[in-house]
Amino acid sequence: MKIYDISLPIACDMPVYKGKPDKRPVLSVASDFTIGPVYESKLEMNLHTGTHLDAALHIFPGGGTIDKIPLTSVVNKCSVLDLRQVTEKITAADLAVRPIAGGDFVLLKTRNSYEQILEGQFIYLTGGGAEYLVNCGVAGAGIDALGIERNQPGHPAHRLLLGAGLPVLEGLNLKEPPAGRYLLVAAPLNIIGAEAAPVRALLLPLPKEWQCLE
Amino acid sequence: MKIYDISLPIACDMPVYKGKPDKRPVLSVASDFTIGPVYESKLEMNLHTGTHLDAALHIFPGGGTIDKIPLTSVVNKCSVLDLRQVTEKITAADLAVRPIAGGDFVLLKTRNSYEQILEGQFIYLTGGGAEYLVNCGVAGAGIDALGIERNQPGHPAHRLLLGAGLPVLEGLNLKEPPAGRYLLVAAPLNIIGAEAAPVRALLLPLPKEWQCLE
Repeated sequence: MKIYDISLPIACDMPVYKGKPDKRPVLSVASDFTIGPVYESKLEMNLHTGTHLDAALHIFPGGGTIDKIPLTSVVNKCSVLDLRQVTEKITAADLAVRPIAGGDFVLLKTRNSYEQILEGQFIYLTGGGAEYLVNCGVAGAGIDALGIERNQPGHPAHRLLLGAGLPVLEGLNLKEPPAGRYLLVAAPLNIIGAEAAPVRALLLPLPKEWQCLE
Repeated sequence: MKIYDISLPIACDMPVYKGKPDKRPVLSVASDFTIGPVYESKLEMNLHTGTHLDAALHIFPGGGTIDKIPLTSVVNKCSVLDLRQVTEKITAADLAVRPIAGGDFVLLKTRNSYEQILEGQFIYLTGGGAEYLVNCGVAGAGIDALGIERNQPGHPAHRLLLGAGLPVLEGLNLKEPPAGRYLLVAAPLNIIGAEAAPVRALLLPLPKEWQCLE
């Protein structure tokens, strides 16, 4: 069984959103073999570092939290769309010529997975693109950027997706999987009351018996 | 598709190993709507808090790290064994009368999932029990306790399992899934160089076409 790991490794020198220092993870030693029989570490990390899922509270005061996202939306049929031709931002027109199955979680594979642009001029989703996905009836949207949008006043992509109850999966690495359909497994850490959480996101082959998965 | 979430929710009042205060997670606000347009949190957590996977470095100086554990060992066929009759510790004799398929990841379901004993006198695995599992050719072992053992001099259960290259999955909640076979999805956060990492562990139905999964 082929397993695609579509997560970014977590390390102090990993790419972070716009290169912001407060987004860097800090791994420290809690106990090592000089002071005891076991080695233990502690991790300090912004919840929007690396591969993570956003819930509505990230954008909407009083919005839904990560622990309330149904597992069935993030362990789900998934379409990886090849958008490597896009050079700046993904619009509704870019999406309209690609196959999107209603009910699928949609992952946007762009040049971000291939070039060193994650901290800079990364490809992002426009408000119009987000609206198109909502109208397609997708279960959620993910992208190979540390944010699904950048520098868009009012955060329309976040607002449209999260406002429609669709979780947003950010910080993916989609270099390896070709466009196509998969079983996405992207359950976040179940952090009670949080607006986001880290995810080890995987793509598995979609079993024949699950191809009509509701 | 039935999805069993076998993870402990992460919260400041969650059960932690022996109730140690330094094992409690701390969730703090990095940014909220009083200072900007988005809400963001930061998590500070020992890597052995809640549901997590141990790698060899946890016990062995220079041992393997969590980022080197093959995904195929933790996204794998899995057997949940019903050990609720055990009242103190799981021995080889307890395991010998239960079905264990070589190659499966084995999860030990005990009274820990039903009683308020996670921070105290929880059920654990003996060295003899760990040796039995290694000899069965399992792919790894998990338990519904925050440690797979407690108060065993020299940590024989950890040493035998991790020494044989088998990852150890701790902090499960196995109350819901009945004994039987499943597809385990327990990929840890990919923290480079760490001795352990948090996991959102799930059990899915084992697809017919994967029942002979190698």
